[in-house]
Amino acid sequence: MEKIKVGVLGATGSVGQRFIQLLENHPFFTVSHLAASERSAGQSYGEVMKSKWKISSDIPDYAKGIMISLPKPADTMGVSLVFSGLDSSIAGEVETEYANAGVIVISNSKNHRMVPNVPLLSAEVNADHLEVLKSQSTSGKIITNSNCTIMGVTISLKPLFDKFGLESVMLFSMQAISGAGYPGVPTMDILGNVVPYISGEEDKAEEEPQKCLGTVENGKIKHADFKISAHCNRVPVFDGHTVCVSAKFKKKPSKNDILAAWKEFAGEPQKMKLPLAPEQTIVYREENDRPQPRLDLETGRGMSTVVGRLREDSILDWKWVVLSHNTIRGAAGAALLNAELLYQKGLIPKG
Amino acid sequence: MEKIKVGVLGATGSVGQRFIQLLENHPFFTVSHLAASERSAGQSYGEVMKSKWKISSDIPDYAKGIMISLPKPADTMGVSLVFSGLDSSIAGEVETEYANAGVIVISNSKNHRMVPNVPLLSAEVNADHLEVLKSQSTSGKIITNSNCTIMGVTISLKPLFDKFGLESVMLFSMQAISGAGYPGVPTMDILGNVVPYISGEEDKAEEEPQKCLGTVENGKIKHADFKISAHCNRVPVFDGHTVCVSAKFKKKPSKNDILAAWKEFAGEPQKMKLPLAPEQTIVYREENDRPQPRLDLETGRGMSTVVGRLREDSILDWKWVVLSHNTIRGAAGAALLNAELLYQKGLIPKG
Amino acid sequence: MEKIKVGVLGATGSVGQRFIQLLENHPFFTVSHLAASERSAGQSYGEVMKSKWKISSDIPDYAKGIMISLPKPADTMGVSLVFSGLDSSIAGEVETEYANAGVIVISNSKNHRMVPNVPLLSAEVNADHLEVLKSQSTSGKIITNSNCTIMGVTISLKPLFDKFGLESVMLFSMQAISGAGYPGVPTMDILGNVVPYISGEEDKAEEEPQKCLGTVENGKIKHADFKISAHCNRVPVFDGHTVCVSAKFKKKPSKNDILAAWKEFAGEPQKMKLPLAPEQTIVYREENDRPQPRLDLETGRGMSTVVGRLREDSILDWKWVVLSHNTIRGAAGAALLNAELLYQKGLIPKG
Amino acid sequence: MEKIKVGVLGATGSVGQRFIQLLENHPFFTVSHLAASERSAGQSYGEVMKSKWKISSDIPDYAKGIMISLPKPADTMGVSLVFSGLDSSIAGEVETEYANAGVIVISNSKNHRMVPNVPLLSAEVNADHLEVLKSQSTSGKIITNSNCTIMGVTISLKPLFDKFGLESVMLFSMQAISGAGYPGVPTMDILGNVVPYISGEEDKAEEEPQKCLGTVENGKIKHADFKISAHCNRVPVFDGHTVCVSAKFKKKPSKNDILAAWKEFAGEPQKMKLPLAPEQTIVYREENDRPQPRLDLETGRGMSTVVGRLREDSILDWKWVVLSHNTIRGAAGAALLNAELLYQKGLIPKG
Repeated sequence: MEKIKVGVLGATGSVGQRFIQLLENHPFFTVSHLAASERSAGQSYGEVMKSKWKISSDIPDYAKGIMISLPKPADTMGVSLVFSGLDSSIAGEVETEYANAGVIVISNSKNHRMVPNVPLLSAEVNADHLEVLKSQSTSGKIITNSNCTIMGVTISLKPLFDKFGLESVMLFSMQAISGAGYPGVPTMDILGNVVPYISGEEDKAEEEPQKCLGTVENGKIKHADFKISAHCNRVPVFDGHTVCVSAKFKKKPSKNDILAAWKEFAGEPQKMKLPLAPEQTIVYREENDRPQPRLDLETGRGMSTVVGRLREDSILDWKWVVLSHNTIRGAAGAALLNAELLYQKGLIPKG
Repeated sequence: MEKIKVGVLGATGSVGQRFIQLLENHPFFTVSHLAASERSAGQSYGEVMKSKWKISSDIPDYAKGIMISLPKPADTMGVSLVFSGLDSSIAGEVETEYANAGVIVISNSKNHRMVPNVPLLSAEVNADHLEVLKSQSTSGKIITNSNCTIMGVTISLKPLFDKFGLESVMLFSMQAISGAGYPGVPTMDILGNVVPYISGEEDKAEEEPQKCLGTVENGKIKHADFKISAHCNRVPVFDGHTVCVSAKFKKKPSKNDILAAWKEFAGEPQKMKLPLAPEQTIVYREENDRPQPRLDLETGRGMSTVVGRLREDSILDWKWVVLSHNTIRGAAGAALLNAELLYQKGLIPKG
Repeated sequence: MEKIKVGVLGATGSVGQRFIQLLENHPFFTVSHLAASERSAGQSYGEVMKSKWKISSDIPDYAKGIMISLPKPADTMGVSLVFSGLDSSIAGEVETEYANAGVIVISNSKNHRMVPNVPLLSAEVNADHLEVLKSQSTSGKIITNSNCTIMGVTISLKPLFDKFGLESVMLFSMQAISGAGYPGVPTMDILGNVVPYISGEEDKAEEEPQKCLGTVENGKIKHADFKISAHCNRVPVFDGHTVCVSAKFKKKPSKNDILAAWKEFAGEPQKMKLPLAPEQTIVYREENDRPQPRLDLETGRGMSTVVGRLREDSILDWKWVVLSHNTIRGAAGAALLNAELLYQKGLIPKG
Repeated sequence: MEKIKVGVLGATGSVGQRFIQLLENHPFFTVSHLAASERSAGQSYGEVMKSKWKISSDIPDYAKGIMISLPKPADTMGVSLVFSGLDSSIAGEVETEYANAGVIVISNSKNHRMVPNVPLLSAEVNADHLEVLKSQSTSGKIITNSNCTIMGVTISLKPLFDKFGLESVMLFSMQAISGAGYPGVPTMDILGNVVPYISGEEDKAEEEPQKCLGTVENGKIKHADFKISAHCNRVPVFDGHTVCVSAKFKKKPSKNDILAAWKEFAGEPQKMKLPLAPEQTIVYREENDRPQPRLDLETGRGMSTVVGRLREDSILDWKWVVLSHNTIRGAAGAALLNAELLYQKGLIPKG
């Protein structure tokens, strides 16, 4: 099967770097277009990234020689799909231009997330939402993934929502500094400290899960009807967002009901054996002090959601802890899994 | 006015060191008895602490020459009151021995906290609970203070509880490593990491506030009737426990009602102008990213509770963030303020 | 005695904030002029700093109402002296303008440091260098202090240089993140990491001490003649630069010779009892694991240089460890002590 | 080729865990004997390690079912070789017992390191030292590897020592907390701090490299004749020791001479293509701020020594920075590579 040519927008940023890393030797996709701002355009990726690459494995060789262009559809040299890690200040407009030019846009930016006919896709959770793509008027299509903080939370909620219904969910996050990109959080603000505020984060956390868990009606996504309250905090952790969750269900399940629902949970990525799909989407740790970023972050190559400490909540019904890798499962990995799903479903036109 | 002779039990530990520091040049108390385990007994405090003192100011000169004894009432040389920072493995028994010997015990240990006629005293919150001391059968009396995590939370709740009533409170803590004492948390467990579990902590957090906010009936403390659910986490912060709080009230107040209640809140320590009493017990920060341990920990010399981010909660009524200094307001400072209250009320017999 | 009106240039930056803090209730100086860039000019200091103040005590009240102006001598409203914490990109020109306008400039910037008739002043070390001010052609004068990394090192060397002569010095620094200002070091670069490079730092470390320890000849400072080799590293410490030093002397002293030289060392600040002068300039710690930033940083209110681990060096003669507070003794505090020295010597004209 | 049965002594400790990890699916060795203290003996490795495993990948399945025994040769069930990660308090005696029982002991402990006929083996550096095994009187043999701090330093020195001769070397280390094992360094001692002292470390650093670079004479190792002075520091880094090195040569090389010597350096492990041998033993990074633990630690799967910042030293000749992975290249990985070398040379008797 021939590989599909793809591009990465915002290729020099934090999420862009993860795309470059995860796309190395990918069985479906081959990268031929890297776009970034004027500071980098016209230079090779290897040259530009010498002092900017922040992942602990080296820059993949395939990417080093690619010349960076501006994020303009005219310069894409025939890619069928782009991954966008663009900053939200420009992502809205640029992504629309690519979609207008017939390119599939797999976006990690927030700009189009709440548009009713744009899927907020988490491949195991709501593959059926792809149906709304038909109602997008552009020849290319835009698919987004959710905010990194609620990605793992929503996955942990999905099988419980389906079986027991949800009434309300309280979230308390402890978020890694890589979630703020680079240069991101100044060290003077977070070393030996916690900051109980992340701009815009609680708003996203309180409305995105309901869209992810919603249903398709008339070409649009109707949000699920339950309430979320979120407290979002920054902590001095490199990668890995940890979220404490308390939830009230329509019908209170037993502990075993929940554990079974998590264990059995699998979606189309698992059925299709997509390259980036974790074998087990939700991994439950029995130890009483898990999950922890340092010990559990790499579970399923960073694509599993790790859950632990399930216990009764004296106010709502149950409480637990969720960990997911914010730049893999919560960003570039989720987006790539979404693209793999589109590929396998035949939804990507050949360039 | 003559100073009262006091002792410190567990003088070499983390809480003990804070007692030693805070008692330097104290206007009411003079330290003449330091007790610790056999490893240290028989040596001078200065000698033993050379490599064990972990506070960033030097060991106070007054303490250096005091010989450490075992924690036995017979060795107290006539102190009227002891501060106990003993480990809970021995605190129960030893504190009772001192009380039997006629000594007032101001304890930071958990052992006697839930005994119905032992006050769980927070000087601004429940000075009226001292009434139950009469029903203690020993000639000395035992007074405890609450767990460091819920100290600030309970203070922030007190004026709201009095005015608006409480139905339920969700707590999510991010706790400093000094809360675990020394050597306490191994660096390999917490550097660049968070641990979503602290042994025994959630149990204390879910039952101590109700006792603090309770009423005296027939010489015992009757717990207040509201529910708490707690998620307790360890984070790589040196000092300062940050707690996110969501609360439902019997009668939902306005934002201004709450801010006014916090601003006006003062207790006996303020009226009596006790030496360690903060001028303002609850300090509200208007900035959207406060309180933070690094910037707000020293407010009121570590004795104020710093509150911020008051906003509506979509599930319960209101949510906010509380910071308090866990080894000062949450431990040694709270205990010393309690002792100052007893002194000023004439409840400490001369030795 | 009437206080002298002073200004702070670069008042919103890291060093500027320390100036504002240290000048609160100063017995010699009163602040009436605060200058910063266009972003802040025209607004009150209190307003601008609400989200920028990074010191753990609050903004001093005296400063809150002062309107920030641009750094132009015409706007100084009659100050006799300015403290400059300006960025080196503009410090050279602006400081010269102030000096031309008759204002004494106490600069923490690097721009004029190596000019032969500008003192690189460390008040205990080379007060005699003030003699070269006469040869400055401007009506105001410029006085600089050395780089934060070598400040404490040079102090530890001074009494040894005077008594035993120096041949060569190897320096290995572990520098705090506050040395890079704000936002400064991105957390992604330094959390759980060390960076063995700080731009420009080794050059300064290898030439500034020789000027500090030099002699005045014909209105210029002649550098002392010994060699330095420096390795400069960034570490995840908030405040406090730790430097390992190995030194070869012209005449090898005994251990006791060195300890005595350090103990006896005092300069004009101590004789004059200047407000910010530490009682003991060099404090030697006997413990084998000191000095440490966390435990020793506040020695002498951050103005002492703390030294430890003096032992023989198998290649050079002796080795030891030096700690000094980089934003107090290494920057704003050193500059203020220099200004106090000028004041006491009658070198500041009344405005 | 049949695999050789091996054991791991001290299997539950930090170094032991790395042995267990690195031995998974090893082509030469199969683990059949795990020994630890009485606390763990008699239980399965999987059970004991549930809460003790501190590596971010899971416990290898092969090890989970192995029953832990006491470190006694009688219980080895026929292993030919043991890897020892024992604590130095017992390693000396226990390792000798195994050697007496005819077992090859590959030790990471310090106890036998300085015995003249025990190789201090670093497989690329001094494979010829294996000759001294003949002069060991036991039927089994003891082979040690050097201290984790100087492992990478010695590798970086080896090709320069051979070509240009060494006169003196100054070392300044910034060492990771994993070097102290578990629980090791208390968080209160190192969070946001550096400690300029590690017990016993400078002594090892000042004498082990000379043995590694020595020559075999009459069945004993004669130390090389050059001087080392070391400053050893602990920093809040998880894994990875960074060492700044300044060196004086007998014949001063050019920069290119050094770079070429490093590039060309390879030893028997590379010639024999041993499983754990890194392709490139010494990797030089051109960027001016490398090596760094976070970015370079995994180079060569943790087995390469990463070097950078080669520049002239104004006192000695040249200076540079060395990084090596302290628990892989500096401990378990080095030991395993040594064992692979013995295997390939036919020096391990079949059990």
